[in-house]
Amino acid sequence: MGGILMPIRDGDRIYVCLEDGKEYLLRVDRERVFSTHLGNIPLYDCIGKEFGAWISTSQGKKAYLLQPGIVENIFHMKRRTQIVYPKDLGYILLFLDAKAGDRIIDVGLGSGAMCGALARAVGKEGKVYAYERREEFVPVAVANLTEWGVVDQVVIKCWDIEHGFEEREVDALFLDVPQPWDYLKQCWEALKGGGRIAIVSPTASQVMEVLRELHTLPFLQISVWESLFREYKPNPATFRPFDRMVAHTTYMIFARKIFR
Amino acid sequence: MGGILMPIRDGDRIYVCLEDGKEYLLRVDRERVFSTHLGNIPLYDCIGKEFGAWISTSQGKKAYLLQPGIVENIFHMKRRTQIVYPKDLGYILLFLDAKAGDRIIDVGLGSGAMCGALARAVGKEGKVYAYERREEFVPVAVANLTEWGVVDQVVIKCWDIEHGFEEREVDALFLDVPQPWDYLKQCWEALKGGGRIAIVSPTASQVMEVLRELHTLPFLQISVWESLFREYKPNPATFRPFDRMVAHTTYMIFARKIFR
Amino acid sequence: MGGILMPIRDGDRIYVCLEDGKEYLLRVDRERVFSTHLGNIPLYDCIGKEFGAWISTSQGKKAYLLQPGIVENIFHMKRRTQIVYPKDLGYILLFLDAKAGDRIIDVGLGSGAMCGALARAVGKEGKVYAYERREEFVPVAVANLTEWGVVDQVVIKCWDIEHGFEEREVDALFLDVPQPWDYLKQCWEALKGGGRIAIVSPTASQVMEVLRELHTLPFLQISVWESLFREYKPNPATFRPFDRMVAHTTYMIFARKIFR
Amino acid sequence: MGGILMPIRDGDRIYVCLEDGKEYLLRVDRERVFSTHLGNIPLYDCIGKEFGAWISTSQGKKAYLLQPGIVENIFHMKRRTQIVYPKDLGYILLFLDAKAGDRIIDVGLGSGAMCGALARAVGKEGKVYAYERREEFVPVAVANLTEWGVVDQVVIKCWDIEHGFEEREVDALFLDVPQPWDYLKQCWEALKGGGRIAIVSPTASQVMEVLRELHTLPFLQISVWESLFREYKPNPATFRPFDRMVAHTTYMIFARKIFR
Repeated sequence: MGGILMPIRDGDRIYVCLEDGKEYLLRVDRERVFSTHLGNIPLYDCIGKEFGAWISTSQGKKAYLLQPGIVENIFHMKRRTQIVYPKDLGYILLFLDAKAGDRIIDVGLGSGAMCGALARAVGKEGKVYAYERREEFVPVAVANLTEWGVVDQVVIKCWDIEHGFEEREVDALFLDVPQPWDYLKQCWEALKGGGRIAIVSPTASQVMEVLRELHTLPFLQISVWESLFREYKPNPATFRPFDRMVAHTTYMIFARKIFR
Repeated sequence: MGGILMPIRDGDRIYVCLEDGKEYLLRVDRERVFSTHLGNIPLYDCIGKEFGAWISTSQGKKAYLLQPGIVENIFHMKRRTQIVYPKDLGYILLFLDAKAGDRIIDVGLGSGAMCGALARAVGKEGKVYAYERREEFVPVAVANLTEWGVVDQVVIKCWDIEHGFEEREVDALFLDVPQPWDYLKQCWEALKGGGRIAIVSPTASQVMEVLRELHTLPFLQISVWESLFREYKPNPATFRPFDRMVAHTTYMIFARKIFR
Repeated sequence: MGGILMPIRDGDRIYVCLEDGKEYLLRVDRERVFSTHLGNIPLYDCIGKEFGAWISTSQGKKAYLLQPGIVENIFHMKRRTQIVYPKDLGYILLFLDAKAGDRIIDVGLGSGAMCGALARAVGKEGKVYAYERREEFVPVAVANLTEWGVVDQVVIKCWDIEHGFEEREVDALFLDVPQPWDYLKQCWEALKGGGRIAIVSPTASQVMEVLRELHTLPFLQISVWESLFREYKPNPATFRPFDRMVAHTTYMIFARKIFR
Repeated sequence: MGGILMPIRDGDRIYVCLEDGKEYLLRVDRERVFSTHLGNIPLYDCIGKEFGAWISTSQGKKAYLLQPGIVENIFHMKRRTQIVYPKDLGYILLFLDAKAGDRIIDVGLGSGAMCGALARAVGKEGKVYAYERREEFVPVAVANLTEWGVVDQVVIKCWDIEHGFEEREVDALFLDVPQPWDYLKQCWEALKGGGRIAIVSPTASQVMEVLRELHTLPFLQISVWESLFREYKPNPATFRPFDRMVAHTTYMIFARKIFR
């Protein structure tokens, strides 16, 4: 019933957590010394350690070595664009019913956060078709997807979706562009019957525009949501929310393709 | 680039959406007639139809035929216990970093909602070890997991976790029991280094008790969250939130195992 | 330093709270017997009792006798229209800086909730000018204002504000009409320099229309707010929010008149 | 129907709003020149101007001259303590049913924000009895109350409330101290029958302690609330909430005194 213990190796990605809460996502390189405000960490020292263990900085402070996961990847990724935050991303994955084997379209690719999450969900049997009009963003996204080990599950297409998608009968579609209402017909055409679409838009006027267009097309179960996540101080004696929180990221619009 | 068109077959699970918004999750049975307040639906008529299409009820009303996904499954499952709601479930899956190949412990199984979601995420290469002390809940959970096609990815253990888990080095652990603070040491032992735990508790006093215990054990990145999801009227002319919303389901507590 | 003890008299308004949490706002009438699901209360029995005391119903249940205040008045008023809820009302009173001696315009009067709150704030030295186009609402509002003892501080004008207000140099103005953007110029004319306006609108499109118009006029410090109030179960052992809450009542828009 | 036009005089308090949104609360002094990052303002220039008008800074920028109200007073007051924020303050005033003529106890006085709001509500016929154990805070509070013109409606008592209050039969009581549960019996004794108490406490454990004690005493209608206020960008084209908001200030606990 025991799992396999995998010690840290040269080249592994690690998430370094200092005693004071400061955190870094980096790759182990036996030649490199990583500098922090609490002292240096010769990365060679990490090799052979178990995840969860700590090593000492040159100032004698503890640096815990953890495995980065999807949330750490997203918060520490290289990015040149707005990203979909975990608080919304988890819900969108559920509503798109993203699962192993699915074929899903992602527009626009941006820095690749949602694409990476979708690619992980569809797995090796599935495929994500990622569209991005702005060529200059693609290299960053490719670098991120490669880093996360999902680039093989993604087909990137660097063109405008105005004339539609190449795919048909896709299971789901995620639309994150400035004027989503211009492309809803094209989305409908790419989706399979009953296929799911999720659209994110930060402003109320954009949402209203999307709704106006959605209602003219054969879509069912149109719904709009927003999420608020509030973090609490993890101290039992003074248990209460932190003073400030994220008030808004985006509205989320969901619908399913039907035939009239 | 086209996907494969799969018409509805006898035995398929379908999600029937009536014109007035009423929805049903059922299984196609060529012999069965399904009765609704908007007329009868001979299920035989569904066979051969494409998902997204509609059939007519005996009263001439449209009934759309969709594929049920994880959200529909959760909201329409047989249940004898409180469930984790999609608004929290998506976030927990992300924070547990649940992915293909993972080995994850789920306590308690309850009606199987979280177990099913975890099983889907870990896929055929992964495994969910689901613990449930109360024997009487197991048959419902098994029925649900079977219905969702993930029962082979789950090992159910019907015993108390007081004396610990059989597994070691698991990637993640989800704990949903009335007194989670009694089992945190056992959870720590089952997790791999850096492994992730998520605990749900509906009351502030439970959370405080959990925090008190968590701080005595080698856990890092302890955080507590709650989520509020607000739905909007999907009408562009009167765009505004619905009058009422869910105010609270549970607090979510997250942490990662370390070695001191 | 002691206050004066005022026992309950015939004709007093009282707030009756039964053991099971059911509450009634009524007027003591020595001849009347008040019927509840927990037994009858001869109102004669209340006379001479101190507020805070209880009397017994015919079924031997306790009925506590309290003084109704502004919140009880609002939740138990006769009404034919939507009202401004206490959660928003308290904030609006502050932002309008409503205080003794102020002259304030209230449009539309509706059932009188906001008018009553404003009248109480401006006191005997102040005045509220309440406009209501729909004659049929006025009697209910007058009845409410009379009940609350503030009717003398209110001047009701039953006409359309399209052609403006009769007042000039008012300290503040509250605008609650279906198309507020049509009247902002008239509001500006009635306000004193630096005078404050509060507008309530339930939908995002209304707010956007108001903002469009406000920005064309000499107004400063334009701000838009919404409030969410969440109630907790008042039980220390199971301290947590109630399951459901009010998700939306209205957006609140504030601004101050300036000269360009 | 016209109000009286009151030009700005030497010694008046004014709220200066610069073009870029920066705001200052100050007192007109004909001898003083006020320096800002957008240039100097000789305060002599304000005299004789109407509120709502602007004067030019030495850099040719507009500085609007407004009358400060309760919200501006609170946000710009001298303070040495945490204050009750307007979002909670408005609701508390309503639930305490604070009105002209009331006698209300305020503990602790702190910097005087709540005391000032209560004093304004009870007016010249009412009285606020403000208790503050820590002598060092009183001068700041007195300065603030004087500035706001309500100091005559307040009696300040600089002692500990452990042995109770001097007043009896007060209409309402506001309790803002670190360990409110220690004083609830004394509060009950000071209140009139049906009198209202509001308690603020920032942490869940404090609230639970208060509830435990409240339930042992003759109090009715015990309720606990929290408020979330969210501000929107006042731009019709990009109408959406601001990115961040206040997540928590305090829990509010309300109850009314009864006789058992």
